[in-house]
Amino acid sequence: MNQLTEDILIKVITQRPENSHKGTFGRAVLIGGNNQYGGAIIMSAEACINTGAGLTTVVTAEKNHAPLHARLPEAMVVDFSDTELLVELLKNVNVILVGPGLGLSVTVLSILKKILSLQQENQWLIIDGSAITLFASHQLPLKYPEKVVFTPHQKEWQRLSGLEIDKQTPENNQEKQKELTATIVLKSHRTEIYDGNQIWHNTVGNAAMATGGTGDTLAGMIAGFIAQFGGSSESIAAAVYLHSKIGDDLAQEHYVVIPTSISQEISRYMKNYAQKERTEE
Amino acid sequence: MNQLTEDILIKVITQRPENSHKGTFGRAVLIGGNNQYGGAIIMSAEACINTGAGLTTVVTAEKNHAPLHARLPEAMVVDFSDTELLVELLKNVNVILVGPGLGLSVTVLSILKKILSLQQENQWLIIDGSAITLFASHQLPLKYPEKVVFTPHQKEWQRLSGLEIDKQTPENNQEKQKELTATIVLKSHRTEIYDGNQIWHNTVGNAAMATGGTGDTLAGMIAGFIAQFGGSSESIAAAVYLHSKIGDDLAQEHYVVIPTSISQEISRYMKNYAQKERTEE
Amino acid sequence: MNQLTEDILIKVITQRPENSHKGTFGRAVLIGGNNQYGGAIIMSAEACINTGAGLTTVVTAEKNHAPLHARLPEAMVVDFSDTELLVELLKNVNVILVGPGLGLSVTVLSILKKILSLQQENQWLIIDGSAITLFASHQLPLKYPEKVVFTPHQKEWQRLSGLEIDKQTPENNQEKQKELTATIVLKSHRTEIYDGNQIWHNTVGNAAMATGGTGDTLAGMIAGFIAQFGGSSESIAAAVYLHSKIGDDLAQEHYVVIPTSISQEISRYMKNYAQKERTEE
Amino acid sequence: MNQLTEDILIKVITQRPENSHKGTFGRAVLIGGNNQYGGAIIMSAEACINTGAGLTTVVTAEKNHAPLHARLPEAMVVDFSDTELLVELLKNVNVILVGPGLGLSVTVLSILKKILSLQQENQWLIIDGSAITLFASHQLPLKYPEKVVFTPHQKEWQRLSGLEIDKQTPENNQEKQKELTATIVLKSHRTEIYDGNQIWHNTVGNAAMATGGTGDTLAGMIAGFIAQFGGSSESIAAAVYLHSKIGDDLAQEHYVVIPTSISQEISRYMKNYAQKERTEE
Repeated sequence: MNQLTEDILIKVITQRPENSHKGTFGRAVLIGGNNQYGGAIIMSAEACINTGAGLTTVVTAEKNHAPLHARLPEAMVVDFSDTELLVELLKNVNVILVGPGLGLSVTVLSILKKILSLQQENQWLIIDGSAITLFASHQLPLKYPEKVVFTPHQKEWQRLSGLEIDKQTPENNQEKQKELTATIVLKSHRTEIYDGNQIWHNTVGNAAMATGGTGDTLAGMIAGFIAQFGGSSESIAAAVYLHSKIGDDLAQEHYVVIPTSISQEISRYMKNYAQKERTEE
Repeated sequence: MNQLTEDILIKVITQRPENSHKGTFGRAVLIGGNNQYGGAIIMSAEACINTGAGLTTVVTAEKNHAPLHARLPEAMVVDFSDTELLVELLKNVNVILVGPGLGLSVTVLSILKKILSLQQENQWLIIDGSAITLFASHQLPLKYPEKVVFTPHQKEWQRLSGLEIDKQTPENNQEKQKELTATIVLKSHRTEIYDGNQIWHNTVGNAAMATGGTGDTLAGMIAGFIAQFGGSSESIAAAVYLHSKIGDDLAQEHYVVIPTSISQEISRYMKNYAQKERTEE
Repeated sequence: MNQLTEDILIKVITQRPENSHKGTFGRAVLIGGNNQYGGAIIMSAEACINTGAGLTTVVTAEKNHAPLHARLPEAMVVDFSDTELLVELLKNVNVILVGPGLGLSVTVLSILKKILSLQQENQWLIIDGSAITLFASHQLPLKYPEKVVFTPHQKEWQRLSGLEIDKQTPENNQEKQKELTATIVLKSHRTEIYDGNQIWHNTVGNAAMATGGTGDTLAGMIAGFIAQFGGSSESIAAAVYLHSKIGDDLAQEHYVVIPTSISQEISRYMKNYAQKERTEE
Repeated sequence: MNQLTEDILIKVITQRPENSHKGTFGRAVLIGGNNQYGGAIIMSAEACINTGAGLTTVVTAEKNHAPLHARLPEAMVVDFSDTELLVELLKNVNVILVGPGLGLSVTVLSILKKILSLQQENQWLIIDGSAITLFASHQLPLKYPEKVVFTPHQKEWQRLSGLEIDKQTPENNQEKQKELTATIVLKSHRTEIYDGNQIWHNTVGNAAMATGGTGDTLAGMIAGFIAQFGGSSESIAAAVYLHSKIGDDLAQEHYVVIPTSISQEISRYMKNYAQKERTEE
């Protein structure tokens, strides 16, 4: 097993090229947030923008636009029901995250199907939360599974893989990953990443992070890392490690790590790792 | 009388088990906030989430969803008028808080009746604010009174117990509590808790906390403590003590203790007490 | 002339009585904020609540409720157009502020007339902003002018008094005040207060405070001081002085003093002055 | 070429006259923010108000009013579709910014035409974002081009000037500026300003600022500087320099400079430069 350490951050987080513009750092589209779970996609957006993604658009139920902008005017918004605009939007992005707070309605299923069908060869697709459940229960097809990331917690992985939680051994998980081809970020108190070649094992993270919204924040960070540093197991692993590393530091002083408090720290941490000597090169 | 000290916090606030997930720390549903008093339930939610409750859903008038999410994307929301979803939601939670900013309308009475009728044996129910007034004036029935907490201030206690304020002596209060069976958190400048066995007497708290919203914050903290540490007089007493303790510290520098400023401190205080040696064990 | 110094704060800001509750510190109703100027009444509310008023209700256009709650869940809200609820509300309050961001529409005029007609002998009424303009242009009657405060800037004072700005000498102002009976807070870079007996002259304040919203914040502070410390020239003068004093301190480090940044400091300043020895007693 | 240094700030940012009021520091109207890009005009408004503009009104789609007020009650709002009110509003302002988040719809084009036709001789007009694209593609007329500022990034400059990006040399740009007469703020990793007489070359700024919203913040700062210090190349150059200077300082500790974090620093920086000795006078 590949034990994650802060080396992954030093490796992945590069110094930004001087002659650049916002397009240089990627376009992300985050899709989620129905009438009940709008906070989830707001948290994903805060995480994504604070990693430094160049341009971030949030596709969510109309009622979530105002609170999103109240917290984060840096995001752009599209109404969930505006399929035409969504299709247009997806043409030109580097990474798509679908799932945080999406819910399980029939409308949502139809949007999810459309998104899966629109994935382009050069686009990464992160499938999180209820989108995993919908994907699993309707056995939806993937166009470019090698550019798909699933971020299930253990119950969602059970739905996706068919493995009961006590059967979710590294060997079994690895086998199921190979069937799916997609990268699996299996979230637990020690998250593991299955990418088809190896298993990355997170060495940080803590119980103070076990609260609603932590996964939504992680999903947004993965989107932000892929937007900037390209899609790869390493980008994904770096986001996973950084999320837990910040959570560990906050847990030194907090009984519970409020997810949005992680996002507030991302940019300082990334600056720090971007400056460290990259001995592996 | 049982004088509350910080020992109650050291006893109640446990270290979190390492192998845990958000479900481990309880599901809370907070019901309140009509068109006029939406801020009340927002303050309860901030308090509850900052104690570390695993998953918190707020059932409130639709107009309060956006400001809630603008402050607190960690919460989930359900529209007050969506009775079907409320019924579904209540099936699977550990603690229910009803009352902050609820108002006294006929619709509200009907929702309150439904909530009371849906309480399950393993669920705690906190009845606060106008829900106390409605409960008292309509003599509503309780299914599991031993798992009910009322949080009246003195006038609300008068409505509930029939005791005029100058008759609210410990003896009289205790007698009325025995009739109700439910735990009583009788709020005043020195809050008392009647649990059927003993009287807990709060030794902290101050006049700078006498401002609108302080009680809503307390109610949310009690919900958060019960969600995580189980329903017991000790959980309730710990929440009461911590609320006043933070208020006392803030009042060292503030003429008025803005209720939401209490919530901002909860997590740091809890971390501190969770680390202290628990000599009673 | 009576030169204002920090003595006025030491005199007015009392220590809170230990055995008290939120009702002890007054009920304030703030009326203003149409579709264009909603921010004004939000700023008044932030100021009022941060002085420590016990219960604050904001009567404003419905569209302003969400942003108010997003910033300040401690406030209660009533829709501007709900005259019935407004009438009910006004029965039981200590101080009424009308005007910040109110605008000049016909509806507003009718609401203003109603408010003036509902003033009770034990209630103070602060008339600010466009309510001054409406009052002046329609020559509205006052029921208890000795319990009314007008807070005009120089142009509004011209409308109210008929005095051109260059005729606004202390003598002329004093004469016009006597006709009106009400207390006049004449705002300028050195605000003056005319109360029928004397002229209070503010010695603090600065040009960094000359920005939209500063007056709305002051109006809210006056409401909060009257709610807690009773209606008197001294309460009003204390609020005026504190507002400018905080502004001066902030201007040490800021080119412009953003009005809401004043409100963030109120509670600390008041605590400080409440603790100083009150040599005059 | 004129290399920008902090001397431009010392020169432009004057001490405020003591006897002043909010009108002294200018009236700004900011027009932008459709249903998708509302955050852009919110960011412009935060920047403008934090420079110290006396009165700032934001004309934007109705759905953006609540989040704007939740962040910034200091701003006034007007609904985008209320042309009558917009016309009234424009009569009495010093500086108009049009474009951030405006979009490209037919309605927007018609509003832009109206704004251009209403410019008065004593008013400065800043044309940003999609308003540049609309202006270029419809070859709209300017009434007072010598009081117009365009703030294109390189692609927008291509649309406006016809110059492909690799043809955008100082000489070519200067020639095109002379055709347009208006001042050009050509944004890139080293922004240049063409004013008809000279070329100002920004010496600060960094890649951490390459994220969505940075340009909206700059546009708001330029509006705020013109509102207070008058329209001139120097005012514009000072805003450009300060924006990048703050960005450089923030980038010392942040991997990405979140645009709204720039606005939070403006007032402190301006105070600092206002106090420096102005050796050039």
